[in-house]
Amino acid sequence: KMLGRVLCAVLFVGTFPSPAAASQGHISVVLLGATGDLAKKYLWQGLFQLYMDQVSSGHSFTFHGAALAALEPGQRLMFDVLKKLSCPPDEAPDRCAVLKDQFLKLSQYHQLKTAENYTALSREIETLLRQEGLKEAGRIFYFSVPPFAYTEIARHINSSCRPPAGAWLRVVLEKPFGHDLQSAQQLAAELAGFFREEEMYRVDHYLGKQAVAHILPFRDQNRQFLDPIWNQHHVERVEVVLKETVDAKGRTSFYEQYGVIRDVLQNHLTEALMFLTMELPANVSSAQEVVQHKLQAFQLLWGLERSSAVLGQYQAYDSQVQEELQEEWGYVSTTPTFAGVLIRSDSLRWEGVPFLLTSGKALDERVGYARVLFKNRAYCPQSGTLRDAGHSPCKPRQIIFYFGHGVLNTPAVLVSRNLFQPVMPKDSWKEAEARSDLHVFGQPLSDFYMYSPVKERDAYSVLISNIYHGRKDFFITTENLLASWAFWTPLLDSTSRQPPRIYPGGVENQQLLDFEMVSGGVAFTLAEPAELLNPGGQMPSDFRAVQSKFRQSPLVSAWAEDLISQLASDVEEAAVRSVARSGQFHLALSGGSSPAGLFQRLARHHFGFPWQHTHVWLVDERCVPLTDSESNFLGLHRHLLQRVRVPYFNIHPMPVHLNRRLCVEEDGGAELYAKDIEALVANASFDLVLLGVGTDGHTASLFPRSENGLEGAPTVVLTESPVKPHQRMSLSLPLINRARQVFVLVLGKGKHDITTLLSRVGHEPRKWPISGVSPSSGQLVWYMDYEALLG
Amino acid sequence: KMLGRVLCAVLFVGTFPSPAAASQGHISVVLLGATGDLAKKYLWQGLFQLYMDQVSSGHSFTFHGAALAALEPGQRLMFDVLKKLSCPPDEAPDRCAVLKDQFLKLSQYHQLKTAENYTALSREIETLLRQEGLKEAGRIFYFSVPPFAYTEIARHINSSCRPPAGAWLRVVLEKPFGHDLQSAQQLAAELAGFFREEEMYRVDHYLGKQAVAHILPFRDQNRQFLDPIWNQHHVERVEVVLKETVDAKGRTSFYEQYGVIRDVLQNHLTEALMFLTMELPANVSSAQEVVQHKLQAFQLLWGLERSSAVLGQYQAYDSQVQEELQEEWGYVSTTPTFAGVLIRSDSLRWEGVPFLLTSGKALDERVGYARVLFKNRAYCPQSGTLRDAGHSPCKPRQIIFYFGHGVLNTPAVLVSRNLFQPVMPKDSWKEAEARSDLHVFGQPLSDFYMYSPVKERDAYSVLISNIYHGRKDFFITTENLLASWAFWTPLLDSTSRQPPRIYPGGVENQQLLDFEMVSGGVAFTLAEPAELLNPGGQMPSDFRAVQSKFRQSPLVSAWAEDLISQLASDVEEAAVRSVARSGQFHLALSGGSSPAGLFQRLARHHFGFPWQHTHVWLVDERCVPLTDSESNFLGLHRHLLQRVRVPYFNIHPMPVHLNRRLCVEEDGGAELYAKDIEALVANASFDLVLLGVGTDGHTASLFPRSENGLEGAPTVVLTESPVKPHQRMSLSLPLINRARQVFVLVLGKGKHDITTLLSRVGHEPRKWPISGVSPSSGQLVWYMDYEALLG
Repeated sequence: KMLGRVLCAVLFVGTFPSPAAASQGHISVVLLGATGDLAKKYLWQGLFQLYMDQVSSGHSFTFHGAALAALEPGQRLMFDVLKKLSCPPDEAPDRCAVLKDQFLKLSQYHQLKTAENYTALSREIETLLRQEGLKEAGRIFYFSVPPFAYTEIARHINSSCRPPAGAWLRVVLEKPFGHDLQSAQQLAAELAGFFREEEMYRVDHYLGKQAVAHILPFRDQNRQFLDPIWNQHHVERVEVVLKETVDAKGRTSFYEQYGVIRDVLQNHLTEALMFLTMELPANVSSAQEVVQHKLQAFQLLWGLERSSAVLGQYQAYDSQVQEELQEEWGYVSTTPTFAGVLIRSDSLRWEGVPFLLTSGKALDERVGYARVLFKNRAYCPQSGTLRDAGHSPCKPRQIIFYFGHGVLNTPAVLVSRNLFQPVMPKDSWKEAEARSDLHVFGQPLSDFYMYSPVKERDAYSVLISNIYHGRKDFFITTENLLASWAFWTPLLDSTSRQPPRIYPGGVENQQLLDFEMVSGGVAFTLAEPAELLNPGGQMPSDFRAVQSKFRQSPLVSAWAEDLISQLASDVEEAAVRSVARSGQFHLALSGGSSPAGLFQRLARHHFGFPWQHTHVWLVDERCVPLTDSESNFLGLHRHLLQRVRVPYFNIHPMPVHLNRRLCVEEDGGAELYAKDIEALVANASFDLVLLGVGTDGHTASLFPRSENGLEGAPTVVLTESPVKPHQRMSLSLPLINRARQVFVLVLGKGKHDITTLLSRVGHEPRKWPISGVSPSSGQLVWYMDYEALLG
Repeated sequence: KMLGRVLCAVLFVGTFPSPAAASQGHISVVLLGATGDLAKKYLWQGLFQLYMDQVSSGHSFTFHGAALAALEPGQRLMFDVLKKLSCPPDEAPDRCAVLKDQFLKLSQYHQLKTAENYTALSREIETLLRQEGLKEAGRIFYFSVPPFAYTEIARHINSSCRPPAGAWLRVVLEKPFGHDLQSAQQLAAELAGFFREEEMYRVDHYLGKQAVAHILPFRDQNRQFLDPIWNQHHVERVEVVLKETVDAKGRTSFYEQYGVIRDVLQNHLTEALMFLTMELPANVSSAQEVVQHKLQAFQLLWGLERSSAVLGQYQAYDSQVQEELQEEWGYVSTTPTFAGVLIRSDSLRWEGVPFLLTSGKALDERVGYARVLFKNRAYCPQSGTLRDAGHSPCKPRQIIFYFGHGVLNTPAVLVSRNLFQPVMPKDSWKEAEARSDLHVFGQPLSDFYMYSPVKERDAYSVLISNIYHGRKDFFITTENLLASWAFWTPLLDSTSRQPPRIYPGGVENQQLLDFEMVSGGVAFTLAEPAELLNPGGQMPSDFRAVQSKFRQSPLVSAWAEDLISQLASDVEEAAVRSVARSGQFHLALSGGSSPAGLFQRLARHHFGFPWQHTHVWLVDERCVPLTDSESNFLGLHRHLLQRVRVPYFNIHPMPVHLNRRLCVEEDGGAELYAKDIEALVANASFDLVLLGVGTDGHTASLFPRSENGLEGAPTVVLTESPVKPHQRMSLSLPLINRARQVFVLVLGKGKHDITTLLSRVGHEPRKWPISGVSPSSGQLVWYMDYEALLG
């Protein structure tokens, strides 16, 4: 009945299709959380915009606000919101007034609480459509509710509110999508029980911001200019920044659980960064191609470490938390409200280029942008004052996607005039007039080609329109979401106990939050100012590497990351000392997962390592081809050798593969390796041997009760492992014990039992081969993380 | 007699030692070319300064001006100069006046033309000293004469004018020291026939400029600050610049022979660059250590190519040359008066850091400096206007050695305040007041710690003082000189026919001389402006690669450098095509000197080369260990493999060294290699084989009348070379002929005869193995430089 009335009114106005014209079918939009903040601020306005845009599309619409409140109060609350819907400036006021009236009539409130409520809603929609003779096109459910309610609602929709066959279901989900990788996986798995992947539209509203949404089209339309310069040889850095002036006041119950990284970096800034740095798909409108390329880009990012980030917290945050969460006085929160993060990629394109992501609350300015700064590759003999603005090759060259706010106060795309004049779609972006009084990033606006949207559109309007059109490239797929969480979770874990730097907020922050790239990570430029230190707050003391003894030998112990960093420094020191002494450094390395972190650390942080003079030997090898994924050498190659410059001749893989067969006694591989060692390593005494320990006490590929290698000559032996691949080649214990230094690395809870055992037993190599490691005239040092040492 | 008078006068003044006090002995200074320009302008003043400084040193002095003119006119000319000697501002006028009077009395003119003149001079000095009872300390001969006169004068000094045993000889030589490597070697060899190395003081007066002379001491005294940042990770670029406003008018007879590179870059700017970039010796005052480190730094520089430089010539130069040299109208000079050169080093410290050397006449400003610009490694969240000047880590960071002139109009050392406050020797450098009205390199002076000399000293005074003290670190040794010429000569050769860009001169140059780094070289930013093009001047057309046929196959021909560059592009294209087709690129490479240039080009210019997917094979190998300097693989490793990222597994050296012996038939190395090829290369068909040609028509290691490899199976064979090392391993001709593409590279005049022969003969592989190269279903392309093709 209600719809009937509306249709009459619409026919009168002449902009709404007759039932016959509405041949595309009917769309029901259900907004869950219809009276919440987000709905009030953006979603109803977005739905109204959708209605205005699509009123003559051939679809008919109804809008269903839903919440837990009963019908009467809910209805009142909701219509208070709807009455305040505004007409966009580019819409004729008359038309808008009529459409708004229609929109209100097409909207109704529902209490959605019980299974029955959902069934009733579904029945109501069906009845209406039957009455009006309309076929159903689809249903949109927009979840504007807290995530703890997701599963329950999803269950109800799936069981009681799915549209009939032939019509589509689209559910729109708002972040947070979990709290870390594990919780995100869990939530994704639950939702997957109710919806198919293609039915889910996960919103990251940044993807609806016009400047962000235009990054990929821009790269696509300007391939001719960008192809030669969009790489490590030309790009100096990439910055993605969101600065806010507001703080978390009034939202601390949410914020205290999340913090700036989960709130902004993991989603908004990461997505913008991916659009900038992913390989460009042939078809940038293909959601599938885009997500595939994005996932590949995620794979190539370096893992984040604690040193990858600087964290801050505005000074008033603690007291706001105490007040709002009724925490006791003296409560100390380590939730960061500011973060600067250095991200690097291993892709050929971006190797060596820093990606800097920064966001914070209570900063001096509200602004967001993604900026690609190019290297200055020019020399200009003439002094600067005489040159025409913008075109000099010695001026900074940059491309900026300006999200909004800030000095420009509009979304914009800016390209330095000394780069190129970009191709922009004329129907949606217009060239902005050059206002030479404004400066961005230290340059007058007249130095740029600047474009702003023909029609400025709110992110939610853009997204709702894309949901309507079924364009999934503006949304976050499950794979994409999990890839992002997999990337960010290690940083969240490793910084969770770290006290952030306290900053006063606003312009008083001055240089306090400036940070610099230092040896692979970032650090604040200014030393910690004592007067702003959290008063009474003690620095956790467990970040230091602790030195003591284990089995009568020196023990270095710390959390894994610090331990690896200490070990890497010690290896470099040994190398430098050895090269100074003998001109060479003979290093024998073990395979397995533990040393991978060390190898990466050496490759990424130790630029002064004398690789040119280092010989790399294997402690042990599995009898598989060198290119087999099980090969120790392959792991060593991937994590270390392909990143540093060890001369080819100094790399000594074990000859497990001779005459096209593996570890056959008669091929004499072990003897060959022993002869190579004899020929090149003075006195067959390695400068440094790096070992691990197995849960059974094995080391190298010397297993308990092994027939070979535990005693006898210092040589190379074939051995048998209890686990696959069984055949191994290994340095013998006597050969290991000739080394000048032996470092044993032990990581993880799984090693706690063997560590405990080893602390009690004596020299019993036949039972526990590691207990036989005892360099006859060298030094043994144990490197154990707290988990291995303390359980 | 004359000396006696002087001594009396001096005793009266009380500043000159009595004969007894002059116990250090007597020094005779002979200035050859005493009435020339340089002598007038700088040298006499420098000698007077020496006298003022050393009058109470314990040495006594006489000064002997000499020239070709007869006694009377020479004497008059010389004393006209001496009378105009000025007193430095920091000298008490009374004392100076007395000393000047003494200096004039100690100076006399000699005609030095014949052998007898020299003998007479020597006798005169000896007589004087005997009369006064002084012992001889040494003789300084300062050559301020054109270089063509050097040999003659040197011969006379050596044969007739050496001091007696126990006294030293120091001869001071002024540039030019040759015109290129060959002429410099010749001149050096001639001089070495007359003087010992330690007797020669080659002047580069830049080494006497206070800011240049302080580079090494600065690096030494500030090691604590510089050690962590003086490397590729922190330095963005190094610039050494000398801009002049004057042009070459009046000096074109000299200039037309030399040009800006020989005049300024090869010597002054190179020396300053070396001081900045050489490894710092433990003792920076040790001339020997300094020169050793400098020579090592020269060794690590990339060879210059034509694309390493941009060249310019101010517009009026041609007509000045026509006028001054009486050249006919229409004479076109290609002598550059402006050069911008990109230099790179292979040292670990500087890898990837561009060194830019720039100099020119008729520019907008007179200034000289050496500048180290550091990378911006910071992010500053607060907008710039609110920060205190100078200290922000986001401001440019630089260290500048300011030679003089320009806005500062004084020698100076500047260090950005956001870097560190440098240690400066207080007795010779003072902190300058911050004049915030002055800007250098776009920053107010207040952003820098700035130091200027306590006492500003002319370069020649500094040098003459160092000659007196026997400090050779301020002079250019023969080795140093030849290293510099060896570095610059290839650029001079390759650009000698290149027409420079014409520029109007002065401020009108605007952006015309701006240049940019592009793909390994430099190029002017603006396209050649037609209106300034040398009117009527035709571009030489011989720079293009010419395409035609040779032995029925495509022939690419050009000058060697262009040919290599074309070949490198073609190799990359083949690689990209092959990887697109099959995911891999199997490339078989020859050894020898010709391909070294190709390897370097590939490593330095082809960043997009798909090395990750490339397999590198050897075409042939000498039976020596892989690390032997004769090994083809070693050359390949040095020029290519150690610079690019080919996975270890994809590198396939020939197994010439098995079971610790070389190419023994029974070890089956050739069969092993053949099997590897069979296993990895589809159909044993290489994607690309690169070959060379010997003067006897051999290719790979397949020699005329070889018993193996010329026919039969597609395999790998052991062969015998007529030259050492005799034993070789080689792909067989039938295996080569299975390749998809074969490129044959032929370079140099020495190959002209065989090339001519090959153009006439048919398929006769037993006589000329190269004539048997004919891929059965692939393509053969010849790459020959003009010298090989045309002789």
